Amino acid sequence: MFKSAKKMLSLAAGVAIGLSAASSAWSASSLEEVMKERGLTQKDLLAAAKTYVPTGGRDEYIVFASGGQSGQVIVYGIPSMRILKYIAVFTPEPWQGYGFDEESKAVLAMGRIHGKDITFGDTHHPAFSEADGEYDGKYLFINDKANPRIAVIDLHDFETKQIVVNPIMKSEHGGAFVTPNTEYVIEAAQYATPHENIFVPLEEFNDKYRGAITYWKFDKKKGRIDESQSFSVELPPYSQDLSDAGKGPSYGWSFTNSFCSERYVGGIERGRPPFEAGCSSKDTDYLHVVNWKKGEELVKAGKAETVNGHKVISMKTAVANNMLYLVPEPKSPHGVDVSPDGKFMIVSGKLDSHAWVYSFDKIMKAAEAKKFEGKDPYGIPIIAMKDALHKQVNVGIGPLHTQYDKAGSCTVYTSIYVDSMVTKWDYCEGKVLDQMPVHYNIGHLMAMEGDSVSPDGKYLVALNKLAIDRFNPVGPLHPQNHQLIDISGKKMQLLYDMPLPLGEPHYAVAIRADKLKPGVRYKSGWNSRTDSRSPFKTRAGREKTVRTPGKVEVFGTLIRSHINPEIIEVTEGDEVIIHLTNLERAQDETHGFAMYGGNVNLSVEPGKTATAKFQADRAGVFPYYCTEFCSALHLEMQGYMLVQPKGYKAKEGGMVEGVKYTEADYNKQVKTNVDTQAVINSVVAFITSHNYKDFPTVVALVEDATDQLGFAEEAKKKSEAAAAKKDWQNAMLWANQWWQYQVKTADMGLRAKTFLEQNNAKKIK
Amino acid sequence: MFKSAKKMLSLAAGVAIGLSAASSAWSASSLEEVMKERGLTQKDLLAAAKTYVPTGGRDEYIVFASGGQSGQVIVYGIPSMRILKYIAVFTPEPWQGYGFDEESKAVLAMGRIHGKDITFGDTHHPAFSEADGEYDGKYLFINDKANPRIAVIDLHDFETKQIVVNPIMKSEHGGAFVTPNTEYVIEAAQYATPHENIFVPLEEFNDKYRGAITYWKFDKKKGRIDESQSFSVELPPYSQDLSDAGKGPSYGWSFTNSFCSERYVGGIERGRPPFEAGCSSKDTDYLHVVNWKKGEELVKAGKAETVNGHKVISMKTAVANNMLYLVPEPKSPHGVDVSPDGKFMIVSGKLDSHAWVYSFDKIMKAAEAKKFEGKDPYGIPIIAMKDALHKQVNVGIGPLHTQYDKAGSCTVYTSIYVDSMVTKWDYCEGKVLDQMPVHYNIGHLMAMEGDSVSPDGKYLVALNKLAIDRFNPVGPLHPQNHQLIDISGKKMQLLYDMPLPLGEPHYAVAIRADKLKPGVRYKSGWNSRTDSRSPFKTRAGREKTVRTPGKVEVFGTLIRSHINPEIIEVTEGDEVIIHLTNLERAQDETHGFAMYGGNVNLSVEPGKTATAKFQADRAGVFPYYCTEFCSALHLEMQGYMLVQPKGYKAKEGGMVEGVKYTEADYNKQVKTNVDTQAVINSVVAFITSHNYKDFPTVVALVEDATDQLGFAEEAKKKSEAAAAKKDWQNAMLWANQWWQYQVKTADMGLRAKTFLEQNNAKKIK
Repeated sequence: MFKSAKKMLSLAAGVAIGLSAASSAWSASSLEEVMKERGLTQKDLLAAAKTYVPTGGRDEYIVFASGGQSGQVIVYGIPSMRILKYIAVFTPEPWQGYGFDEESKAVLAMGRIHGKDITFGDTHHPAFSEADGEYDGKYLFINDKANPRIAVIDLHDFETKQIVVNPIMKSEHGGAFVTPNTEYVIEAAQYATPHENIFVPLEEFNDKYRGAITYWKFDKKKGRIDESQSFSVELPPYSQDLSDAGKGPSYGWSFTNSFCSERYVGGIERGRPPFEAGCSSKDTDYLHVVNWKKGEELVKAGKAETVNGHKVISMKTAVANNMLYLVPEPKSPHGVDVSPDGKFMIVSGKLDSHAWVYSFDKIMKAAEAKKFEGKDPYGIPIIAMKDALHKQVNVGIGPLHTQYDKAGSCTVYTSIYVDSMVTKWDYCEGKVLDQMPVHYNIGHLMAMEGDSVSPDGKYLVALNKLAIDRFNPVGPLHPQNHQLIDISGKKMQLLYDMPLPLGEPHYAVAIRADKLKPGVRYKSGWNSRTDSRSPFKTRAGREKTVRTPGKVEVFGTLIRSHINPEIIEVTEGDEVIIHLTNLERAQDETHGFAMYGGNVNLSVEPGKTATAKFQADRAGVFPYYCTEFCSALHLEMQGYMLVQPKGYKAKEGGMVEGVKYTEADYNKQVKTNVDTQAVINSVVAFITSHNYKDFPTVVALVEDATDQLGFAEEAKKKSEAAAAKKDWQNAMLWANQWWQYQVKTADMGLRAKTFLEQNNAKKIK
Repeated sequence: MFKSAKKMLSLAAGVAIGLSAASSAWSASSLEEVMKERGLTQKDLLAAAKTYVPTGGRDEYIVFASGGQSGQVIVYGIPSMRILKYIAVFTPEPWQGYGFDEESKAVLAMGRIHGKDITFGDTHHPAFSEADGEYDGKYLFINDKANPRIAVIDLHDFETKQIVVNPIMKSEHGGAFVTPNTEYVIEAAQYATPHENIFVPLEEFNDKYRGAITYWKFDKKKGRIDESQSFSVELPPYSQDLSDAGKGPSYGWSFTNSFCSERYVGGIERGRPPFEAGCSSKDTDYLHVVNWKKGEELVKAGKAETVNGHKVISMKTAVANNMLYLVPEPKSPHGVDVSPDGKFMIVSGKLDSHAWVYSFDKIMKAAEAKKFEGKDPYGIPIIAMKDALHKQVNVGIGPLHTQYDKAGSCTVYTSIYVDSMVTKWDYCEGKVLDQMPVHYNIGHLMAMEGDSVSPDGKYLVALNKLAIDRFNPVGPLHPQNHQLIDISGKKMQLLYDMPLPLGEPHYAVAIRADKLKPGVRYKSGWNSRTDSRSPFKTRAGREKTVRTPGKVEVFGTLIRSHINPEIIEVTEGDEVIIHLTNLERAQDETHGFAMYGGNVNLSVEPGKTATAKFQADRAGVFPYYCTEFCSALHLEMQGYMLVQPKGYKAKEGGMVEGVKYTEADYNKQVKTNVDTQAVINSVVAFITSHNYKDFPTVVALVEDATDQLGFAEEAKKKSEAAAAKKDWQNAMLWANQWWQYQVKTADMGLRAKTFLEQNNAKKIK
């Protein structure tokens, strides 16, 4: 019934021919017809042309957006606005095995709050690591507002490596921001609480509740935050908000704004006006100006206090050492954004209609001259707004966040929350240049490399908080809407509306795509979370099951398309530990591992070693299998864990075969294999007669195909050995396994051949 | 310093003017320039024009894709390929509050396996509810392969309402598939196990391990599966795989294919060839042909056995009642797809190069004539392939799944796994029409309304399992790639490559967008998971905190921008239950609720009542806040839970105010409010002087603005009452709250005004 393998595989040639024919016969319908039918304007077509990325193409910028309450980080491309990945950070996520394998559980465990596992995060502001103020593409930091924490993501593999818990805060919002050489990751408190983990009544709010900024020391060599070298600065119980680090002339300083400097405590249930009224009654709040370089010195000099085991510089010490000043700023502001040259900071209040440009030079002059308009209730000197201000510009109602156009320009863009628009203006001259509506109620906005010392301009993304009627409806919970705006011309041009399907991004950062050099595989037997060789690494042929009383430990492997071991026998009550190493070297050949009856679920990328650990608490039969569609025989990549009742004794007698194979079956299979080999040889001849070494993709495929063919050779030997003993059962089965490897070889080979044909590879003479 | 509210708000007029100017000055760069710069071909531009959806536009089809190991369902639009939502199904997801609020925890609890919470799922095949074989847009079903379960999602709100656990399976893959009137949801076992929850050694595999198909009764009125009316059919220990339900002439029957009918049990660790070899040694596996209508009768007639409390029709009974047949099919097949007219089923094997078209009529004739080629080891009659086959067509290496073109046509599309292509062919005549490469290794493919009795044709989506080099790299774990193909012409045309950022979709279904009518808000005080009024519903003004020994129960509300209550006092050790009702009626005005120190995290959409429950196990200060950016005063939507130590007695003395307000402060605020009201009045005048009632979006905005203004009136009264008593503190604070509501009113009003201007509203005379 089945055609010979030769005929079957030779179909591939026909495919290639069919393809070329199809290509030339492409444009059945004209562009005009399509535009008419779909109701597209010329403007729409231009926007489509500016954002469409053809198959295999690359995006220019990669965005890392906070995933809001999803607790994750969202990665997408510009200009295509296609989402490439959700990186699991604070929330367990099974596709990535995050929070399921023991290795990633250890990362999540770092984020425990008073011993409790936290299974979500409220991520807000991502930040790239920097070198000389430029994004270096190595690490990403992201904060959790709900339970003050900072996570470190390695951009080599897009995995979360570390979570640190703030030792003194119970709320934060203004993280993560980095200093120009990633000396520190800045995290500012939000709702004031006692720094100690104790109850203090609200009646003592002014005296005992406190804000703070934490400077987390980052060890660039290790790629980890060093908690022992980190410190905080005590601040008044104003709700600190976002920060930015100084650069150039303002290097060594950082700026943090605040709201509710009224220190109002609500209580509707007691008949008091709500927080929102009391926290926005004054016209101004305070910009905190902090010298972190001085702070670092003070800590080294032993001038810090220790709270909850963490170094804290008191307000008194900070003031005495001239490292802390306040400057009034419009009430309820959001971003504070330092200009690329480090000379200015732009702040705006969400209940105001102006953007305020502060001059770092003026602030320093006032500070040095000790020209203050007074002190706040905690003794911190206040520099008058007029002594700090460069410009004040009417930009629209509810200005929120400002991004800078390309380096050297005076152009900035401010998101306008209440008016739902973006205002383009000149911060040197102080005049509005352009305005564009967005849908709806924009929060942050983001320019390309906008937080670095050399922003690129080009594109802007409006991070809108509502979608309302922008997309097909999906129930009461709406997506958010990121709108891509072309800022390369004089007027801003809306290019694309992008729904966010999971989480509410608060802020995002975009990096030039060519700065990212992620790997596609791990060194063999790698613990990706510690970035070191796993002690549980297992090589092919070295798989084993180790039994000790009450415990079964499996050192297994995964490769197309079997799990080794395929049967795991344990006794009811045993602790079971399964370490699996993915032996593949081929790009994208991830295997998964899931088992019935519990939460056993691993994602094992090429080279990775991952561990599942659980109690076998019930006798029974527990199938397991590979969860990633990895080859044509993927569904057959399965096994059984057998949990025997205590005291179970196996009966005599081995497996009963479902089918008995004969010498004829064996011979038939061998003939198929020989035919298949001939086809493989012809594909190999095609590839090697072309300049395939000029195509890295093909080189990788050939390497993988060669590997698979090596495995075929092993199975062939086993088959022949069984045949020599007239064990037709095993001879036939191993011959079939030999063929399986041939099919996988052919899969790779055909893909390589097609690639060469599509990419006009040259024949070698 | 601040300009008057009038000047501030009047900026809005300027914005509208700026906008019109920007529109006309649009095309700075020409289409040709953009194409040249971005390296786009004419073909690329055509594809861009066919997929681009301008701002506010709608997609034609909505896709529901399984989220693979993410345990979720992915919703995206065609042709834009923008992802609209991840629906939480088997995995807790904090953005949706899923697995965090008590209401959704109850749904997840239905899915417990032997009492254990399962925090992931391996979703594979979604299916829409049907009426007369047409998608009715009401419900979606999705399965979990790892722990055999089926979930029910209501398409009215895109929320998961029910999870049922299969009572006899320990593995399944072939779910969910529905019968033409959603009488049943079909779920087929995969890896055979004993039906009972006991240990049975593998040596007894042939005798004691079993497959099965479960027919879950769906109660369309209740929108829930009725477990008591559901039943299963016992099957041999072949690995059953996908199914499809008969329709038209084949109505009442269902078809399920299988692999590993060899009944091979691997064991590499014992020196045996792996499962993949033994499970693919025979040339054929079996298509199971089952009469579920007869099964239903047998169950009603008491002919079923009871296993684990569930009705199971034994193979013996099934055979005796002529409701079960086997037909050989090519080995290791994946999909079995019934033609729209119900006359044919197409099957293909992943190690073969043919698609096989079976005739239902021929199968029935053979069955009625009792023309069998034999019986399987379990006594099930086998109908010879030649007696069942209509056509056999050479389509490419590794055919996997077939979808039908529009109703009445003979055209079908088959995904070709090993060759990484799609083959278009004619199943009436049995000839290949076109072939197109895809990247890479396609699994399922999906046509518009492709599983209904009247497929639409138009588009096809290739669900590719690997992405390799298609997108910007994001580390070892790659996205998958869904490729959109235009099938409206003679030749297939590739339109778009879409990365899948989370999870590996196995199958997807697409419905005409206009068939979905989801709501945007709940009835006030709604438990969305039970679809009934919550007993914890709280109205505005009826908020309360109920204290009983060891327990504090809060009945609170959420509205822009405060949480009521703002202070919750409890004692260390108390159980705390917080019910929150979102009082908003405005579309997209979701509020969140997160609290420090644990896993308290709710998403409360307009109208919803959600509940958080936890132990206050440590004394301390626990800030809470709204997690959705809901208004300009969002950050001020906060509160404190104070956990007092046991035996704590409050000291005398009330709150110490951070700022003292005077009569002058009050008068200044009142002046601002009066000015603001004048601006609001002018906006209202603009709106009411236009035909705003013709725009539902504006009507909703006006309704919302009117609500907010009503709240402003209440705050105004409180302010005036305090002023009458010369309580300037409260007078000023309430005056500020009055202004907050005015700002929210203005926000809505301005959005409505802009909408009218952009949509050429007419002035009423």
